Amino acid sequence: MTGVSARSRSRARAADVSHLNWFDDPVALARSLDIDVFVELIGGAEGPAHDAVQAALELGKPVVTANKALIAEHGLKLARLAEAHGAPLLFEAAVMGGTPAVKLLREGLVADQVTAIAGILNGTCNFILTEMESTGRSFADVLAEAQRLGYAEADPRTDVGGFDAAHKISILAALAFGGAPNLSAAEIYGIESIEPIDMQLAGKLGFRIKLIASANLEDDGASVRVTPALVPIAHPLGQAGGALNALFIEGRNVGRLYLQGAGAGAGPTAVAVAADIADVVAGVRRPVFQKPAHQLQPLRQADPGHRTGRVFLRLLVRDQPGVLASVAEALAKAQVSIDSLLQHPADDGDLVPIVLTTHTAPEAAIQDAVEHIQAIQAVVQRPRVIPIARI
Amino acid sequence: MTGVSARSRSRARAADVSHLNWFDDPVALARSLDIDVFVELIGGAEGPAHDAVQAALELGKPVVTANKALIAEHGLKLARLAEAHGAPLLFEAAVMGGTPAVKLLREGLVADQVTAIAGILNGTCNFILTEMESTGRSFADVLAEAQRLGYAEADPRTDVGGFDAAHKISILAALAFGGAPNLSAAEIYGIESIEPIDMQLAGKLGFRIKLIASANLEDDGASVRVTPALVPIAHPLGQAGGALNALFIEGRNVGRLYLQGAGAGAGPTAVAVAADIADVVAGVRRPVFQKPAHQLQPLRQADPGHRTGRVFLRLLVRDQPGVLASVAEALAKAQVSIDSLLQHPADDGDLVPIVLTTHTAPEAAIQDAVEHIQAIQAVVQRPRVIPIARI
Repeated sequence: MTGVSARSRSRARAADVSHLNWFDDPVALARSLDIDVFVELIGGAEGPAHDAVQAALELGKPVVTANKALIAEHGLKLARLAEAHGAPLLFEAAVMGGTPAVKLLREGLVADQVTAIAGILNGTCNFILTEMESTGRSFADVLAEAQRLGYAEADPRTDVGGFDAAHKISILAALAFGGAPNLSAAEIYGIESIEPIDMQLAGKLGFRIKLIASANLEDDGASVRVTPALVPIAHPLGQAGGALNALFIEGRNVGRLYLQGAGAGAGPTAVAVAADIADVVAGVRRPVFQKPAHQLQPLRQADPGHRTGRVFLRLLVRDQPGVLASVAEALAKAQVSIDSLLQHPADDGDLVPIVLTTHTAPEAAIQDAVEHIQAIQAVVQRPRVIPIARI
Repeated sequence: MTGVSARSRSRARAADVSHLNWFDDPVALARSLDIDVFVELIGGAEGPAHDAVQAALELGKPVVTANKALIAEHGLKLARLAEAHGAPLLFEAAVMGGTPAVKLLREGLVADQVTAIAGILNGTCNFILTEMESTGRSFADVLAEAQRLGYAEADPRTDVGGFDAAHKISILAALAFGGAPNLSAAEIYGIESIEPIDMQLAGKLGFRIKLIASANLEDDGASVRVTPALVPIAHPLGQAGGALNALFIEGRNVGRLYLQGAGAGAGPTAVAVAADIADVVAGVRRPVFQKPAHQLQPLRQADPGHRTGRVFLRLLVRDQPGVLASVAEALAKAQVSIDSLLQHPADDGDLVPIVLTTHTAPEAAIQDAVEHIQAIQAVVQRPRVIPIARI
């Protein structure tokens, strides 16, 4: 290591950096002539991280980064710059820490057509959801504890709002489907509105609620989405608890693959960064994404109007004759068929929760059904709709 | 593709090879001047596969192979040859089909110290064990069916005897621990003697029986073993059923990783072979194993005398007073403590099965305890001992 730049020179660190050249400005470090590889661990899509990476690539210096926001938002521009200057741009640590999901998709499956990926890519959300499920405590309560323990940031919106997972799935989708990341094509929902009762009732139907980041290859593009979703308890994604990250991949020829590991932390991140540096040393010359940058297009968003899926519906209804018939009729009218249904015993006066899962139906039809259900007089609040993951 | 060689030219194939140069002798194909990469899918550690790979490497031609026996038995020699002639030697398809376990260990974890790997690496055995468990049928019965269905070879010994898994774990252990494969250091036990009653009683204690290929880094070398072993039902290795392959990896910095996918089949194998060819095209220059071949030593076998572990014991005893006390005393005398114990109701006259799991103890102590138990008069057959996987 020849030089280092960070916000604070004096901060206590596990590694001694006092013998290294110190740069107050990371861009100056990126431009210094005696570096062979520029390693960027600053974070953020704009500002010093962006400027320093761009400066290094413009000088043809290999760049290794853990910056998912940067790659998700500027991946195409930076890939063009990197390839124009013959400089590798590697970002294994940006997704799933030391679990080599990027290498797996970029290299291991380069010859296959990946059709779907779905994963748990944000450890903070997975920790919060796992805690909520096992303790029955509210989102706000568990989040506050996670913040006290240092598992969640003081400003948790990037994590719990699904934006961190959206950066990561945009990168993986680009590698999987042969395009460039297109963050604006991603639908993003966070976990803030999930209630313990959703988890408890989903559990009775054999599901867990996870924040699932997914990308599916459709006829007209890619469907990229981050959303709380139900996964079967017995599925590997259902079994990945705590702060674990997990990724399910389906390819035309390779079939179904599954990868799981720590998604963050100093050790795993260092393993990924060092693996990328080793690739630079090995003289690898391949495109930054699956195809040469001059052939890349940002992933095209599939028309959500064509989308089909299964959902979990939770209703709160007055315990009176005929309600269940009305609900079933509303679904039938919209041509949505029921897969499983559970009417829970009332424990709150005369209000009863009803939960059901549907078979696969057009999302528009499900939306119709929800409107019809909401119009039923005995239904006392807007139905909760949570997708069931396509895995 | 420029040329092809196979046992039969006229056999029906999914791909048309009639326009390609035909070679009766694969060694002649390997030596032909107009090939850029030699792809070997013949199989077998000796004979034409070995000779053709050696011939290609001697001419500096990159080799891509799916041949686990060849790499496990001649890995060091071939790595030296490959590196001396500047020719890549890649073998992703040799282990876990299209699931890139080789790439993960060789590249993704190159900067970490892997301390343990354990996996389900033989799909045939996993299929047979899964069927035995779910149907209660005997090994011989399920094997015969697997042979009829084409899931098992006419001569099944390579699979069910654990030798195929031993080839694979020897390769992975070499990559994980920075040595060359050393098949002779592997202890190998097959699944032939597993009975449905073992599975049923293990299940009651929360375990499944799987053929586990494992390698652990010890102070004095590596402990490499293929053996039927108990894994907790809830562990990902316990959940990988049917013909799936699965691999658990532990690294000092990366923590615990888990990888699962199809272990064989035309599609997955083709994906792995094509990924290796893409690596050749990308101009990758790295050692065949983790270190340059001239620094490699065959993995040293750790002294099994130092080994500790947990085991599952199944006894058949006469249903008479004091037997359980004698068994407990035999274990206590050998300083082996009991983790869980189940005395099953007798359904066969006055003979009762007792199963127990131990805490971790020296294997020698466990062996002592088994001898003591066998000497008890009411114990009517040699105790069945099955290790519990260290995962």
